[in-house]
Amino acid sequence: MDAEAAVVGANDSFYRAFTEGSHRAMAELWARSAAVVCVHPGAPAIVGRESVLDSWRMILREAPPLPMRCDGVVVNLLGGDVAVVTCYEGNGDHPAHLAATNVFVREDGSWRMVHHQAGPLSRSIPRPAPRSTLN
Amino acid sequence: MDAEAAVVGANDSFYRAFTEGSHRAMAELWARSAAVVCVHPGAPAIVGRESVLDSWRMILREAPPLPMRCDGVVVNLLGGDVAVVTCYEGNGDHPAHLAATNVFVREDGSWRMVHHQAGPLSRSIPRPAPRSTLN
Repeated sequence: MDAEAAVVGANDSFYRAFTEGSHRAMAELWARSAAVVCVHPGAPAIVGRESVLDSWRMILREAPPLPMRCDGVVVNLLGGDVAVVTCYEGNGDHPAHLAATNVFVREDGSWRMVHHQAGPLSRSIPRPAPRSTLN
Repeated sequence: MDAEAAVVGANDSFYRAFTEGSHRAMAELWARSAAVVCVHPGAPAIVGRESVLDSWRMILREAPPLPMRCDGVVVNLLGGDVAVVTCYEGNGDHPAHLAATNVFVREDGSWRMVHHQAGPLSRSIPRPAPRSTLN
């Protein structure tokens, strides 16, 4: 698997962990060796793995009633071991209401999250139409 | 100068360019070789150096009436050539009203910006008291 596909996979894992309310999957995804920072929408930055995972524990107690979706993924590979993902977050089929920055590092052979910031979009962005299987 | 100090310097350059309304300084700061992405508050992501610098040209036409300040800087060095900065943005002495993620890469020996996202804080954060010169 090439690096970009692996990063997209790690990014998908983040939204799957969110959707499933899985703190275990979230803990698996966030980096162990590298320092981590998380900026939830509207909130001050949370610094450090323990504090970041505590914040997710609280959030995941109330898993979203609809799947957390991630549209318009752009992967920016910086060297071989760091990637910045930009995407839009939405629930179920609703238009995306947040823009997100997700930063990953390759740690022990796996892409792990070191930074997340999500912030509100002034105008929500409709879910892209599914690609036709004929094209 | 160590890497962290150099990254803080590059981050300061960003807010200085903003404050001075200097498109030339902004163009100097954003990466040339690496791909770049910019997420202005509330807006969709802008991808690519030309489009990002065009967006700054429009913004800088109306330079802020007060200096753009950057508080609470946290630098996360990822390997030797990538750094993620988290900080709060405010104008003049007003409380900070935005949280920001700024990603830099070392390119041709200089730290250059590859990613910026700023989003509104639900509660603004007062400007930290200046450090006493006695301590």
